[in-house]
Amino acid sequence: MKVRKFALADASFERSPGQEGDVFAANLVDQRHGGPVTIGYGRYGPDQSIEETLAVHDVMVVLEGRLTVSTSAGPLTAGPGDIVYMPKGEAVSIRSHEQGAVTAYVTYPHWQEARG
Amino acid sequence: MKVRKFALADASFERSPGQEGDVFAANLVDQRHGGPVTIGYGRYGPDQSIEETLAVHDVMVVLEGRLTVSTSAGPLTAGPGDIVYMPKGEAVSIRSHEQGAVTAYVTYPHWQEARG
Repeated sequence: MKVRKFALADASFERSPGQEGDVFAANLVDQRHGGPVTIGYGRYGPDQSIEETLAVHDVMVVLEGRLTVSTSAGPLTAGPGDIVYMPKGEAVSIRSHEQGAVTAYVTYPHWQEARG
Repeated sequence: MKVRKFALADASFERSPGQEGDVFAANLVDQRHGGPVTIGYGRYGPDQSIEETLAVHDVMVVLEGRLTVSTSAGPLTAGPGDIVYMPKGEAVSIRSHEQGAVTAYVTYPHWQEARG
């Protein structure tokens, strides 16, 4: 695969698997492309919440809005330009605030394969 | 390692190795932390340029400013919210524009180890 550039306008959002809220993911690079990481954009509607035990190492960069990530160690709130690192195996709750949120994400290895 | 949140204010920038321009990197998570990926922030002064053959897979999210990444296939210009994927082995030239740039990066595996 060659060097590529992606913009939010390139993203085809789909509802995140296993939940019914307004939380969407759009993979741009994944197992189809032969590399080791999945890259994409995430979009959260206002006041949405998802719970997940991470099957992969997940790095989330907040581009717009605000998210609170809670673990047994407590809550962390991230806004534009902030990075949240969620290592494999951690149990998290991710909650958007009233303005929703847009993120960029990178996972290692591929999250769709890890979910089976 | 637990879930962690980072902000630009947490970054300790150091000049990128092997070049003399105003291009700086600040690792936040790397080989010291036991995981598979390096995470950090990059900062480019105005009109700077670096050339590199990638020793690792590198994902760059532009947070501020604008960068042009050139390869043998041509130039790609990225602004705030855009993602540039640079697979291992690619030869790139990265040039900042007049306003400089700030990025978030994720590499697999650790770039400091790959450089030896």
